[in-house]
Amino acid sequence: MKKHNFSAGPAILPASVFEEAAEAVRDYNGAGLSILEMSHRSPEVSAMLDEAHQTVKDLLGLSDDFEVLFLSGGASSQFFMAAMNLLDEDRSAGYIDTGTWSKKAIKEAKRFGGLNLLGSSAEENYTFIPKGFDVPADLQYVHITSNNTVAGTQYHALPDTAVPIVADMSSEIFSRPIDASRYGLIYAGAQKNMGPAGTTLVIVRKDMLGKVKREIPTMLDYQTHITKQSAFNTPPVYPIYVCLLTMRWLKEQGGVNAMAARNAAKAKTLYDEIDANSMFKGVVRTEDRSLMNVTFVLENKDLEGDFLTACAAANISGVKGHRSVGGFRASIYNAMPVASIDVLIEVMKDFTKKYG
Amino acid sequence: MKKHNFSAGPAILPASVFEEAAEAVRDYNGAGLSILEMSHRSPEVSAMLDEAHQTVKDLLGLSDDFEVLFLSGGASSQFFMAAMNLLDEDRSAGYIDTGTWSKKAIKEAKRFGGLNLLGSSAEENYTFIPKGFDVPADLQYVHITSNNTVAGTQYHALPDTAVPIVADMSSEIFSRPIDASRYGLIYAGAQKNMGPAGTTLVIVRKDMLGKVKREIPTMLDYQTHITKQSAFNTPPVYPIYVCLLTMRWLKEQGGVNAMAARNAAKAKTLYDEIDANSMFKGVVRTEDRSLMNVTFVLENKDLEGDFLTACAAANISGVKGHRSVGGFRASIYNAMPVASIDVLIEVMKDFTKKYG
Repeated sequence: MKKHNFSAGPAILPASVFEEAAEAVRDYNGAGLSILEMSHRSPEVSAMLDEAHQTVKDLLGLSDDFEVLFLSGGASSQFFMAAMNLLDEDRSAGYIDTGTWSKKAIKEAKRFGGLNLLGSSAEENYTFIPKGFDVPADLQYVHITSNNTVAGTQYHALPDTAVPIVADMSSEIFSRPIDASRYGLIYAGAQKNMGPAGTTLVIVRKDMLGKVKREIPTMLDYQTHITKQSAFNTPPVYPIYVCLLTMRWLKEQGGVNAMAARNAAKAKTLYDEIDANSMFKGVVRTEDRSLMNVTFVLENKDLEGDFLTACAAANISGVKGHRSVGGFRASIYNAMPVASIDVLIEVMKDFTKKYG
Repeated sequence: MKKHNFSAGPAILPASVFEEAAEAVRDYNGAGLSILEMSHRSPEVSAMLDEAHQTVKDLLGLSDDFEVLFLSGGASSQFFMAAMNLLDEDRSAGYIDTGTWSKKAIKEAKRFGGLNLLGSSAEENYTFIPKGFDVPADLQYVHITSNNTVAGTQYHALPDTAVPIVADMSSEIFSRPIDASRYGLIYAGAQKNMGPAGTTLVIVRKDMLGKVKREIPTMLDYQTHITKQSAFNTPPVYPIYVCLLTMRWLKEQGGVNAMAARNAAKAKTLYDEIDANSMFKGVVRTEDRSLMNVTFVLENKDLEGDFLTACAAANISGVKGHRSVGGFRASIYNAMPVASIDVLIEVMKDFTKKYG
């Protein structure tokens, strides 16, 4: 029996995607070959890779000022690659510390140039998004983690600056429209809202490149992958293919605008229950709540194990909170059906009837 | 109808692996979840990752002096990571240039320390493996490309030295036993003889590490991944799983010794036909022929298109040679059935009857 998968990542994808993805492992579109054994330079796989790149542009409304790449190494590799490719040794970038992933991005960027910490919510355990800070105009970029998977916060407005934004969108890519003109670089590990683990989407505005003087190993230079359209070396074909299947599904659903409306409604249902239910409470400031990762706790922490047991009995998996936050986290990405959220809410209501 | 897949990579895997790999995309061992949506920290996936690491050790007979990693970024990333992690700025490493991939490894290594070119077959279009060179004892390592996918050559004996060997085994890993005591580092992109594109096997002898003084970004430091057993960040779960399925199959087949015997027999059948058939000839020196990638040409190059047409008619794919060598290349990795090689030989015989 299929579980209700609230895992933070790797995470739920549409059921139809799993079906198509499984079939392609047997035979890719009648090619007489599994997609796992097909040359990345074959006409079929080349066409698939082209479609994947183009669909990113279509979904996000990107102009030709941007290049789209599917790389590997996870968003964790972008923490250093972004700075290595964009940040001069004698220049500075602004960073905002909103938790686990921001901290790692900051640690790696420091190796390459000046780092200006514009804001941090560390002192309040990352329960809000810093706002109202000044952004020096001479920064090369301002880095944000647009959705914070661990804490459960999300930027609902970008920092007020003309400096290009570099955003880690791993856990919210394609969940809402973006104003592309504000971004110099966007990156996203696939395994939260776009596909399986194994590839990382990188979107770079061309005029951000060519400004650093350092020598960069070939595989770490965005320009290498731009020139060869993500196929300088053998790309992670299957993870990219599953991303494409998910993106096709997204288009059929009406694209990122339709998804944003649906995500807002889905998140509201769950937050409403958290706010109304006397036994539970949200973890982060209301105005900074993530529509993707809903963090909440029990007023009575002694009952945590019982709640997880009740979830498991209802075939719900993945709601245990990250160890740094505790409590619970329901990750309700694009592919999460309303019906699964309803099951979780039902379990919360029943739990309160029993223990409240 | 299933094709006879002679592609150089991504490449053929056992038919049973494709079946199991497809089923896991639908449901992973009855978990009620696709393997593509399961947390890399779930008990099921953790156990799978552990088994994958252990099976590498079992298959190659590695002692605890070695660490096994499944990384991403392809063998192309190991070209620089090997030197970044092992080669001091004021020391030198020896490299042997045996073609396309060696050249790339050399280019990236030069950024990190001294490079001593011990041998090269460039002047004869890489049709042999250099031998008989002296290896200075003070080199930090000697790098070889143990099997050359493009040229079709293979080392049948290691260079005569006590210096630790660093080997790119991408296109021959698990095709034969190794003398582990000779190696300091082994790396192999999965997509040639082990799995699909998307992960790279790295085997490192522990005492090779901790000797360089440079600062290394977290994700590029082998030690990071050793400490977290390839799960510092989200690893490419599915590509690793398919590698594990292939390794389980390898064990069932009798392991690398059985595979070496089978590969030698398979290659002999095909080389015997090339040598016996008046219309075809091999490309490389007989003693350096690869058992994995069999390169050959037509004496009459005008007939190349006709031969490829004859192959396609027999449901054979992937035999067009690399553009730098021309002619044909039959990649006959572990999973290549004898029956498929027989079909290729039949086509060669028929071709000679018709055009000879």
